[in-house]
Amino acid sequence: MGRVYNFSPGPAVLPPQVMEQAQAEFLDWGGTGISVMEVSHRSPEFMDLAAQSEADLRELLAISENYKVLFLQGGATLQFAAVPLNLATPDQVADYVVTGSWGKKAKTEASRFVQVNVAADAAASHYTTVPNPATWRVTDNAAYLHCTPNETIAGVEMHSIPEVSEAPVVADMSSTLLSRPVDVSRFGLIYAGAQKNIGQAGLTVVIVREDLIGHAVAQTPGVADYRVMADSDSMWNTPATYSWYMASLVFKWLKAQGGLESMAQRNDAKSVKLYSAIDATDFYTNPVEFEYRSRMNIPFTLPDAALDSIFVKESKAAGLINLKGHRSVGGLRASIYNAMPEEGVDALVAFMADFEARHG
Amino acid sequence: MGRVYNFSPGPAVLPPQVMEQAQAEFLDWGGTGISVMEVSHRSPEFMDLAAQSEADLRELLAISENYKVLFLQGGATLQFAAVPLNLATPDQVADYVVTGSWGKKAKTEASRFVQVNVAADAAASHYTTVPNPATWRVTDNAAYLHCTPNETIAGVEMHSIPEVSEAPVVADMSSTLLSRPVDVSRFGLIYAGAQKNIGQAGLTVVIVREDLIGHAVAQTPGVADYRVMADSDSMWNTPATYSWYMASLVFKWLKAQGGLESMAQRNDAKSVKLYSAIDATDFYTNPVEFEYRSRMNIPFTLPDAALDSIFVKESKAAGLINLKGHRSVGGLRASIYNAMPEEGVDALVAFMADFEARHG
Repeated sequence: MGRVYNFSPGPAVLPPQVMEQAQAEFLDWGGTGISVMEVSHRSPEFMDLAAQSEADLRELLAISENYKVLFLQGGATLQFAAVPLNLATPDQVADYVVTGSWGKKAKTEASRFVQVNVAADAAASHYTTVPNPATWRVTDNAAYLHCTPNETIAGVEMHSIPEVSEAPVVADMSSTLLSRPVDVSRFGLIYAGAQKNIGQAGLTVVIVREDLIGHAVAQTPGVADYRVMADSDSMWNTPATYSWYMASLVFKWLKAQGGLESMAQRNDAKSVKLYSAIDATDFYTNPVEFEYRSRMNIPFTLPDAALDSIFVKESKAAGLINLKGHRSVGGLRASIYNAMPEEGVDALVAFMADFEARHG
Repeated sequence: MGRVYNFSPGPAVLPPQVMEQAQAEFLDWGGTGISVMEVSHRSPEFMDLAAQSEADLRELLAISENYKVLFLQGGATLQFAAVPLNLATPDQVADYVVTGSWGKKAKTEASRFVQVNVAADAAASHYTTVPNPATWRVTDNAAYLHCTPNETIAGVEMHSIPEVSEAPVVADMSSTLLSRPVDVSRFGLIYAGAQKNIGQAGLTVVIVREDLIGHAVAQTPGVADYRVMADSDSMWNTPATYSWYMASLVFKWLKAQGGLESMAQRNDAKSVKLYSAIDATDFYTNPVEFEYRSRMNIPFTLPDAALDSIFVKESKAAGLINLKGHRSVGGLRASIYNAMPEEGVDALVAFMADFEARHG
């Protein structure tokens, strides 16, 4: 099949330069004579890769020395449990701000390990906005405040974290980390599954302030204990070496692109183009409140849901794939992570105009 | 670098045919126009891969319908915790047979979730044998009996599991699963990290009898709860898709090789060759009791430990890499998993004779 633009919400498109390098050295990595996936994680070659990848990530995000960076398995979903297990005792309260499906899942999982207070929930708006921070009901002395800055299904993004609590802020940044600069010092802990902007599924990046490490309850599995994993440089057990390698290539690619300021500009430009196309006609609709629209995941609906499957079919034929909306909300959705080039958005916008002309 | 033979204990050598196919379709998988690592786990294409891989594994191991097969993240090390969390309550007793470093780690991790009884421990022999099953002190009504049929560091293999307990047998088969036929019906649960004979690091296969599913204690993270993962076909969260894909290729390769009987014959032949070379001279020594010698990991020592680094250096120059013994025991070690061809063992045996001639 020829060149396609992949709008998958995750696992998602990866940079072509990264993919081509990975393919070229698939059988012989760095002169070792074997694949990086056949190399011991404790070999000098892989230890170098691990150290360099951490240094690159620290540089990209300007992470200060008082944070540890972990490269773990288990997905962001294991972190839904690891966060309360490490940061709270079962009788403490943790505040959760729920602005979509992922925040809801995080809250539900956490409720088995900590007393959860839902400080805010955007359910009444069908997750098309973020509740006004002035209305958030935070708890005094909460163990932490959890939020999900970008919700991939409804396409809602909290572009900054309001200062409404003294508690450490914990953020699931699976779908935004590395898409723009982040002031890491505003957070106690950031975690992110890799399969959007970092690399492939199977790796989770955790950035955690040192004072929050070392307090895991006794019933924490070792692989979810930040002290255990930090003390072993994420190698208490065999890490997901190939996923880590792919992330290391993506970090280098991001640096070559000019870093996160540059990515933010490109992502802004891409999302503005697509939202403009949606807003320019009544044929396409995005229901999210303007200031909370996601720059990563852009859902839209057609005037008649019966057209959805035709849109998916015809766009696929045009080389624009994986545009079907999440099964829980229907419609269409374009995920335009870092690795989606502006040309991909241009092609989608052109297709949308053509589709409207034929079906509008 | 030219062709090398990779004796790494894991991550380890993978079949060349598998690696070449993976490289060839790295950028365009099955006509999708994108890499398998850029495809959604919920796409029809990946769902087909997942279903076919499970069917292939079931065929290879003749797994009956009353077992579930799971493809998880977190490594065998997460299973060290998941097993007690799912199969026991904190006040129940679980029996552990410790025949090496991995069994010891499994026991230590489990002791935070269940009452551990060490039914047998080969420490007194420096893990060079398996304690006589007649001496195992099993517990009446134990929740389960845990063992590690192959220990990779000392190279000790329990070639069959004695029937000494009524409790379900749980086995960490990270280093032997798929190296020979296994009577799965003898086990309540088998788990295996993929990075030896199954594929690459980042995937863990769990084969669990249905009646043992559904009893996880409340404090079990969802990704470690067999009911949650079985009900979702291992897709409660995003699985490690590329690792799963690599395993699917290995399963097909194993079928093309004639299945596990054929692999067992080859692995027997390879290990006999190497042990014969070791036993034929006093220059090389393997301390493991004959009937418990591993067919996967073959450690050996030299008459003078000062020769170890020379052996490692010269063997590497000869294209025989990763032969250094584990840091906890020193010496040398050859791991000869499924993907190590007999020619690799021949080359190692020839090198050993030459090395002895020069340094003996």
